[in-house]
Amino acid sequence: VTVRALINGQPGDSISVRDRGLQYGDGVFETIAVRRGVPLLWERHLERLQEGTQRLQLPAADTDQLWQEATSLCRDTERGVLKLIYTRGSSERGYRAPSVSMPNRVFYLAGWPASASIANAAVCVCRTPLGDNPLLAGIKHLNRIEQVLARAEWTDQYSDGLMLDLAGNVIEATAANVFAVVGQTLRTPELSRCGVAGVMRGLVLEQAARLGIPCEIAPLTLTELHGAHEVFLTNSIIGVQPVTTLEGKAYKVGKIAQTLRKEIQSLNAVA
Amino acid sequence: VTVRALINGQPGDSISVRDRGLQYGDGVFETIAVRRGVPLLWERHLERLQEGTQRLQLPAADTDQLWQEATSLCRDTERGVLKLIYTRGSSERGYRAPSVSMPNRVFYLAGWPASASIANAAVCVCRTPLGDNPLLAGIKHLNRIEQVLARAEWTDQYSDGLMLDLAGNVIEATAANVFAVVGQTLRTPELSRCGVAGVMRGLVLEQAARLGIPCEIAPLTLTELHGAHEVFLTNSIIGVQPVTTLEGKAYKVGKIAQTLRKEIQSLNAVA
Repeated sequence: VTVRALINGQPGDSISVRDRGLQYGDGVFETIAVRRGVPLLWERHLERLQEGTQRLQLPAADTDQLWQEATSLCRDTERGVLKLIYTRGSSERGYRAPSVSMPNRVFYLAGWPASASIANAAVCVCRTPLGDNPLLAGIKHLNRIEQVLARAEWTDQYSDGLMLDLAGNVIEATAANVFAVVGQTLRTPELSRCGVAGVMRGLVLEQAARLGIPCEIAPLTLTELHGAHEVFLTNSIIGVQPVTTLEGKAYKVGKIAQTLRKEIQSLNAVA
Repeated sequence: VTVRALINGQPGDSISVRDRGLQYGDGVFETIAVRRGVPLLWERHLERLQEGTQRLQLPAADTDQLWQEATSLCRDTERGVLKLIYTRGSSERGYRAPSVSMPNRVFYLAGWPASASIANAAVCVCRTPLGDNPLLAGIKHLNRIEQVLARAEWTDQYSDGLMLDLAGNVIEATAANVFAVVGQTLRTPELSRCGVAGVMRGLVLEQAARLGIPCEIAPLTLTELHGAHEVFLTNSIIGVQPVTTLEGKAYKVGKIAQTLRKEIQSLNAVA
């Protein structure tokens, strides 16, 4: 029997209905590319997980234990996607957390999605806005109804959809961060009021800096995006994915996206 | 064996880790008082559940089936709290919902909390703000990290804590709605950008109108609250609970709160 999921280290596929992940979305998650048995960018994923656990006042994760469980689950996987859900654990009814929380950790393995290898993405703009919530911005917590509703706006026509904040600024895609080359500068939105600070976003920013590509974290309007020379999406599964159409406007696959895409691939950061 | 939980009609205590309630908080819930085997205010709870399923584009619930399951679980319960969680069901990885969702419904019974019978509540003001999200405001969805963080601000000193929106207006308590008598008028905040429109809030508004108590749904500042003649909290478990202290300020239990509290009790709307 191939084990596809581990719950607190044990093969299984279910969790208590008193788990606070189910009750309140009280936890965080990570989506990790797997190649030849290795969870890629592990340290970066764990770093973000830890930022999430701190901000949500969750007990710190045992990173050695997580590594052992992740690698044991992925051992025979050539290419796959590993999802980790880390919740505050079970409790009785009510928002109050137990005085000592016993987090639940869920790992499960999914196949490698065909869509991850698409080099050129068609993208829409979602009507579903991202709410405003500085307290939760940046981390990958389990409160994701906004992304679910945004993703329901199309079926197969697009690779992803851009989400705007309540002021109409471009923030991210439902499952990826967004970069644009505006003028001579690579730009990606700041995520202090909403959005998820992707692990791949961080790596791309570092590589851009290393390669001397002028780069800034600053607001991005839809008008600027329409006038951009290049637009691309990033996440841990797709790496760097150039956007070739956005609401009817066509973009060329530009030099910066190509350079960064190759760079990320050569770092073996994507499966 | 006393059955304490039903999952899709079957006794049990666990749910698939692929359930989207766990993965994304993709669902809604209700917290229902039970008295002598009867789930109270059932139609109102179901009405709100249905508004939630519509707004989240979840398949409609089979209300007859829910009623049968609820009453079978509560049959021997003199006083208790029934929680219903209704999720979009399981799916593979990713925000995209299945083309046909098979919702999961979870019922579980908890004991009657001693805190529900406290007639006079001491209340704090939470530092954790409510984010701004018109799309999700009003419904009782499963994305509740804000309430969890707010509830973590105190242990036992208070009955509940008031939450403000990002502009500093009073919206609700972590687990209750708030009413204040400002001048001659009963006032409760509008919930178009954040907050949960409680079933008891709706009933109290109706009873106030029926009794000829002038009442308005309008913004409420902390300053107005400090100057209010009466303040009280409402939810399905506590009914109408007068606030007697708020951040050091003492309130008398006023006539309007007393009247409405008795009214709600006489309707057998609370256990």
